[in-house]
Amino acid sequence: MATDKRMMKLACHIHMTGHHVAAWLHPRSQKDAGSNVEHFLEMAKLAERGKFDMIFLADAPATRRGNLDGLSRWPQYMAHFEPLTIYSAMAAVTKHVGFGATATTSYLEPYNLARLFGSLDHISHGRAAWNIVTTANPAVAPNFGLEEHYSHADRYRRAHEFVEIVKGLWDSYDDDAFVRDTETGVYFDPKKLHQLNHKGEFFQVAGPLNMARPPQGYPVLIQAGVSDDGRGLAAAVADAVFIQTLKLSTAQGIYKDIKERVVAAGREADDLKLMPGMAIIVADTEDEAKREYDWLQSKIHPLVGIELLGSQLGYIEFGDLDVNQPFPAHLMPPEDTSHGKRVRELMRDGHVTVRQMYEQFSGARGSHVLFGTPKQIADGLQEWFESRGADGFIIQPSVLPGGMEDFVDKVVPELQRRGVFRKEYEGKTLRENMGLKRPPSRYAKQA
Amino acid sequence: MATDKRMMKLACHIHMTGHHVAAWLHPRSQKDAGSNVEHFLEMAKLAERGKFDMIFLADAPATRRGNLDGLSRWPQYMAHFEPLTIYSAMAAVTKHVGFGATATTSYLEPYNLARLFGSLDHISHGRAAWNIVTTANPAVAPNFGLEEHYSHADRYRRAHEFVEIVKGLWDSYDDDAFVRDTETGVYFDPKKLHQLNHKGEFFQVAGPLNMARPPQGYPVLIQAGVSDDGRGLAAAVADAVFIQTLKLSTAQGIYKDIKERVVAAGREADDLKLMPGMAIIVADTEDEAKREYDWLQSKIHPLVGIELLGSQLGYIEFGDLDVNQPFPAHLMPPEDTSHGKRVRELMRDGHVTVRQMYEQFSGARGSHVLFGTPKQIADGLQEWFESRGADGFIIQPSVLPGGMEDFVDKVVPELQRRGVFRKEYEGKTLRENMGLKRPPSRYAKQA
Repeated sequence: MATDKRMMKLACHIHMTGHHVAAWLHPRSQKDAGSNVEHFLEMAKLAERGKFDMIFLADAPATRRGNLDGLSRWPQYMAHFEPLTIYSAMAAVTKHVGFGATATTSYLEPYNLARLFGSLDHISHGRAAWNIVTTANPAVAPNFGLEEHYSHADRYRRAHEFVEIVKGLWDSYDDDAFVRDTETGVYFDPKKLHQLNHKGEFFQVAGPLNMARPPQGYPVLIQAGVSDDGRGLAAAVADAVFIQTLKLSTAQGIYKDIKERVVAAGREADDLKLMPGMAIIVADTEDEAKREYDWLQSKIHPLVGIELLGSQLGYIEFGDLDVNQPFPAHLMPPEDTSHGKRVRELMRDGHVTVRQMYEQFSGARGSHVLFGTPKQIADGLQEWFESRGADGFIIQPSVLPGGMEDFVDKVVPELQRRGVFRKEYEGKTLRENMGLKRPPSRYAKQA
Repeated sequence: MATDKRMMKLACHIHMTGHHVAAWLHPRSQKDAGSNVEHFLEMAKLAERGKFDMIFLADAPATRRGNLDGLSRWPQYMAHFEPLTIYSAMAAVTKHVGFGATATTSYLEPYNLARLFGSLDHISHGRAAWNIVTTANPAVAPNFGLEEHYSHADRYRRAHEFVEIVKGLWDSYDDDAFVRDTETGVYFDPKKLHQLNHKGEFFQVAGPLNMARPPQGYPVLIQAGVSDDGRGLAAAVADAVFIQTLKLSTAQGIYKDIKERVVAAGREADDLKLMPGMAIIVADTEDEAKREYDWLQSKIHPLVGIELLGSQLGYIEFGDLDVNQPFPAHLMPPEDTSHGKRVRELMRDGHVTVRQMYEQFSGARGSHVLFGTPKQIADGLQEWFESRGADGFIIQPSVLPGGMEDFVDKVVPELQRRGVFRKEYEGKTLRENMGLKRPPSRYAKQA
């Protein structure tokens, strides 16, 4: 089913009213997107019309904390659907597009998560993906009875164990366990049901999972974040890695490093797809696209800008900051964090003011911004793809649905003409479309 | 919108291949129901064609434990969809029918549960219901790192606290919090966002929930189980109570007691709907219905029967039992449990063998069995309804989809002709259809 030619993979980030923090003020945004099911159903159909591999939803089980005057002007993380449920609705009205849901290994139980994602994979006939996060947002812990957030190292050790448990639970039944033989009266072969009996550092989970093995074996596993711990987790388990980086050269460095780690882990380089986020504004002329971008940037309220900056730099609460002064050096996040790397990448261009910094992050929140004509957008994507900065992209339309309509109607046909993106879905499942192997059960491997 | 005449409320229990334990052997069952999304979508449309108030799904986060030779012949609790996700898919293809999902207060976090049910309520435009259970099945605890199940009293104290937290989280935003004013740039009124800051015996939950208040205020709250603790929880919080009882006289006693408790709790008697389960087999003649029932009963494998009996009597593992001998008195569950009450209700008819006991439970699993012509079924339901044994019913078709098709096509029109069941949905939300008030926010009450 797969062609030999390397083809770009595309996800689209359906971030409520759009990826830009001022998106909801734009006339082409769906203002009540966070609780408008019809908006999400339409986005799913639109993504499928554009032959996207998958939709992506960010998530955390908390509102943002901070200055409420700022947050009340910035709805993106304040009120929205829970991803697994909204995706299940989207699955019922589509046939091909995949569903990448963010879910945390820090505040869910492995048994419950395995069920939710396994269920979505069954409901969608094999189109589920799990974006594995450990949850950096310190606003989450107090929603779960914890005073303090787990440490970074603990979170990642916990994540490794959590993922192994979930995979073990998905393997509870062999693929061919269900015989449903009305002659003998046997519904499943009891030898093909396995109890996990996991006892580890963080979890004890007996199993088995009360669900047939998911159609994809395991839903596609995504990892986001480029800390050393994050890359280690990705190399070990991920089918796709989402990154945010402003520069192609940085993406190329990460690409090379991650692929080497994948191979070192005994996998093939192509078993993992690296997909940077790309904030996109497309218009018929470059000027028009630039004006659109400038309009959105001009609509960022300073309180929103400061909140955004704080969250981008590791959930810092800045309090009062003069937006026209240079960003204070003592507020810089540590250099060895992904936040720290991103902000230093930006600062390399020279000292910038608080406003200039939040404007950079507001336009793209750490992703590269591409604005221009359909050809210019396609040029940018093709350059990153062909120079091995990316296997594909998380397209982040600045305004939804408007920006997504433009991308599907104008950019996708251009990519297809250039032969770097599919004209028809290659397979039935997300794994098949993304050129990813269906993982065998751990018990099949032993046989 | 509501009529003055008291009308029956109907839920249907979509238990995979059907309510009878031998259902999957029947030619009119969908054999792979547990992972067949199309089956569930069709059931949702069928229930809506029959003007049902809601669908009901039982659930526990575990497979059944026990003799695997028996369990492999009895698929009902071994492999199936997670309820919130499958309901979200069903919501996308229907407009009226409600969705009652079982979820446990013992093995979920309140924040996660509030999100899942709130999200389903938004996705369905106000058709979600939560069947609050504390999980009696001891197979669950080891899936969540616990050696032992919580005690009955602890489970119910925890449930009370859990429900109050979840309601508090649903109240995070006032109904009119979202102004989305593009002129002022204000998306929500910060004074209309409330932080819960719950600190109780079992939980600490800061909030707020990252979701607009659900369309129904709170999804419909259902309680199942008739222990004293269960009735206390029901009187305090439930909009509907599901019970299983073999006899009308028992139902009438429970009806009277629960309604008195509701009034004592400061609510109106009609604020809570009592809905017994009714296992139904309908056919064109009584003989044909009886033959159908007998056929299903004859298909119960003794191993399945013993497993079923053990679970009905409080998750006892019996080991070897002679199915033709009287049920051993020392295995009887305590009289003050709902299991104990149900089995004594049955035993009042005289000593019965193990086989006779499991046959009783297999046909209806503690519910009353109604088989016969459409008129006979309608007679039975009408009698229970009018003599105040019920405000409505959980219809439990023995075989799915076949039994549900029969009920919708043959019994529903008969109930409608008699003027005891709706011809059209009265409202837009499940609460409106069930004649239940939309609860105001706790913060609105204080104003």
